[in-house]
Amino acid sequence: MATLWTSGMQVCRALPRLCAIPTIQRGRTVRLMSTETDALQIDVDSKTGVATMKMCRPPVNSLNLEYLTSMNIALEKLENEKCKGLILTSAVPKIFCAGLDILEMYQPDVERLQVFWRSLQDVWLRLYGSKMATIAAINGHSPAGGCLLATCCDYRIMAPNYTIGLNETQLGIVAPFWFKDTMYGVIGNRETEYALTLGVMYSTEEALGIKLIDKVVPQDEVYTAAQEKMKQYLKIPEVARQLSKDMMRRETVEKLRLKREEDVANFKNFAIRDSVQKSLGMYLEMLKKKSQQKK
Amino acid sequence: MATLWTSGMQVCRALPRLCAIPTIQRGRTVRLMSTETDALQIDVDSKTGVATMKMCRPPVNSLNLEYLTSMNIALEKLENEKCKGLILTSAVPKIFCAGLDILEMYQPDVERLQVFWRSLQDVWLRLYGSKMATIAAINGHSPAGGCLLATCCDYRIMAPNYTIGLNETQLGIVAPFWFKDTMYGVIGNRETEYALTLGVMYSTEEALGIKLIDKVVPQDEVYTAAQEKMKQYLKIPEVARQLSKDMMRRETVEKLRLKREEDVANFKNFAIRDSVQKSLGMYLEMLKKKSQQKK
Amino acid sequence: MATLWTSGMQVCRALPRLCAIPTIQRGRTVRLMSTETDALQIDVDSKTGVATMKMCRPPVNSLNLEYLTSMNIALEKLENEKCKGLILTSAVPKIFCAGLDILEMYQPDVERLQVFWRSLQDVWLRLYGSKMATIAAINGHSPAGGCLLATCCDYRIMAPNYTIGLNETQLGIVAPFWFKDTMYGVIGNRETEYALTLGVMYSTEEALGIKLIDKVVPQDEVYTAAQEKMKQYLKIPEVARQLSKDMMRRETVEKLRLKREEDVANFKNFAIRDSVQKSLGMYLEMLKKKSQQKK
Repeated sequence: MATLWTSGMQVCRALPRLCAIPTIQRGRTVRLMSTETDALQIDVDSKTGVATMKMCRPPVNSLNLEYLTSMNIALEKLENEKCKGLILTSAVPKIFCAGLDILEMYQPDVERLQVFWRSLQDVWLRLYGSKMATIAAINGHSPAGGCLLATCCDYRIMAPNYTIGLNETQLGIVAPFWFKDTMYGVIGNRETEYALTLGVMYSTEEALGIKLIDKVVPQDEVYTAAQEKMKQYLKIPEVARQLSKDMMRRETVEKLRLKREEDVANFKNFAIRDSVQKSLGMYLEMLKKKSQQKK
Repeated sequence: MATLWTSGMQVCRALPRLCAIPTIQRGRTVRLMSTETDALQIDVDSKTGVATMKMCRPPVNSLNLEYLTSMNIALEKLENEKCKGLILTSAVPKIFCAGLDILEMYQPDVERLQVFWRSLQDVWLRLYGSKMATIAAINGHSPAGGCLLATCCDYRIMAPNYTIGLNETQLGIVAPFWFKDTMYGVIGNRETEYALTLGVMYSTEEALGIKLIDKVVPQDEVYTAAQEKMKQYLKIPEVARQLSKDMMRRETVEKLRLKREEDVANFKNFAIRDSVQKSLGMYLEMLKKKSQQKK
Repeated sequence: MATLWTSGMQVCRALPRLCAIPTIQRGRTVRLMSTETDALQIDVDSKTGVATMKMCRPPVNSLNLEYLTSMNIALEKLENEKCKGLILTSAVPKIFCAGLDILEMYQPDVERLQVFWRSLQDVWLRLYGSKMATIAAINGHSPAGGCLLATCCDYRIMAPNYTIGLNETQLGIVAPFWFKDTMYGVIGNRETEYALTLGVMYSTEEALGIKLIDKVVPQDEVYTAAQEKMKQYLKIPEVARQLSKDMMRRETVEKLRLKREEDVANFKNFAIRDSVQKSLGMYLEMLKKKSQQKK
């Protein structure tokens, strides 16, 4: 029922091209030009200092190395330019973000696999530890890495009739400790254990019930509700808000910082196991069939 | 109101006989023959790999040294035989498990007292850290050590109109840190503090309210509901499920492993205090009177 | 909307006079004579061993150095005299406690500022780590330090239509880690992050919803409800209750003990920042205007 998606059957095995450094300009309609044009749309409201990062990589905003690299560059720039707030949302219908691109993990180039994982760590470090007030406007399904992005934010608003969760075990893989820590920080120990061991995908309503998300509003109000909530965050004196957030998250952030390479090695060794590759292969096969049936 | 029970007024002071190694055979009706015949009924469903461990030590399934030893041997065997799931339940009417046999603690042989405590640690280490998916089918009252067994499991289903809780303080004794850690992992810090300082026995409904248990079903559906839930656990690729569970619990398990002998000494020194012995004596006296009134 | 209060526009800059050691006598109407006569009313019920500490420092029970010193002396004496329980409440209408006296932080004498902070640490250490059963009878608003006092207690009963919360960020200051730890112990990680970053003041009803408080009763029943609840605590064998509480809180207490001077330095360095002084100045100006408008 609950699934991870992948964006297609082909994947570039090369190491990532150096991305053109994206330019972020202040104004309502300026966009970040990334390596994948328009895949990451970033608008900065010059009045409020609030950036909107819209994921637009059809069909499911899956996170491959190039996309994560774009995110990292964008997040760094927003931080450097002293943006005050960030709203993370999707431009793809019915999908917030489907998480990691499985093709990065299936029959991988081991070198690239490790670079891929480090870039995911980087996104997490930047987003979870951001000085900006961050709000996830979850306007579509949000499994696995999508749930991770959402739980990194300070606040989560979601539309009805979608699903969200860390469903890694359903594919035979295991969320790393910092996924777990992020989830723990939001829903506590018991619910995290339940969610992770069973790979639970929660409906919007269930997610609200366990406080995995903070608010439910109709689909077409998700973004404006995020803007409204952002005003509340920006009313708080900025340094005090940042220091308070840092006090809550520093320990968790430091834990990964200290274990980055150990975590990369763990991931790599796990991903290349025969059993895991077999699981991923079967899963991709299933997706292929599904996709063909639609045609 | 809330109480610990003990199984009788007599207790063997000898060190435990070496238990005959129990044989677990696969099939619906095979039972573990332990030192106390039929006290621990174990059936393994050869199709599903799910074991059912039924406590049957009337009147209240109290845990003395011999019984804990049987449990340890059984848990080890089930683990070795790669059983996938374990349903823990009771064959005694209205009682899931009343916890530690107070006679082990009252006027104890100090040598045996320490062996007793180590065997309890062993049961906890095996059950809390089990690779099997574990479900407590709580079909009766579940105070103290009974609550511990239940909270060690991955999931808890309970029948209405019973009580559950760590009520140690009501008897003048203190739950050790790993009881506390187990409870904390299920209901969080605030509720654990409240539960432990006051020795609260929660009704089934209250227990559901604080998520000490996961589900309430009528008495005669508890076991089948556990079997149904088990199917969900077994659908998850096994290694991923086990690694996720281990990630959640390893730290708590290690904490006891590193402090076992310190914990044994603490328990022993506390249990032999005059004030504690007096409390236990009064409590046993009360139980005796209750029992005589019934006759 | 949510605010910290201060008691007046003038403040003594001298180091505190040595307080006369207060005398606590058992009996229903005896009071602690502190440096500020009747500002801290303490009655000890000689029958039950339950003390009531009533804050009576109009207009808002703000905590300055002298008042904290009185509290420390009183708490030490109650502990030494083996009082069993403590009910903390207010004699000022509509205010439980407004928290730290801002005049201690605005244009401070740096020497006194540090003594002030240490005395706050002392109150926390004594109250959070108290052997007594402690109940907050919250009969008025309870921002910032008032919320801290309440969350230090074992149980919280509150009257409707008031507010409670750690609203420090709203003033541009940051709750120290032990405020955070105390809050975390009651409402968990997610809600604490939300509460602290936004400086949320919760209504009585909201506070109950997130379990920041345990019970709501009408204004004129708050104190008797506290007395009633205290009976439940006192029924538990005392040593077992104390050891259980200590097991839950020791680690948090030790954390501050080990970092006291570092925490004092952090606070001092933060408080004397220009930006913080400016925030506090503006806030005091606003309070002054409000006060004049009333006249």
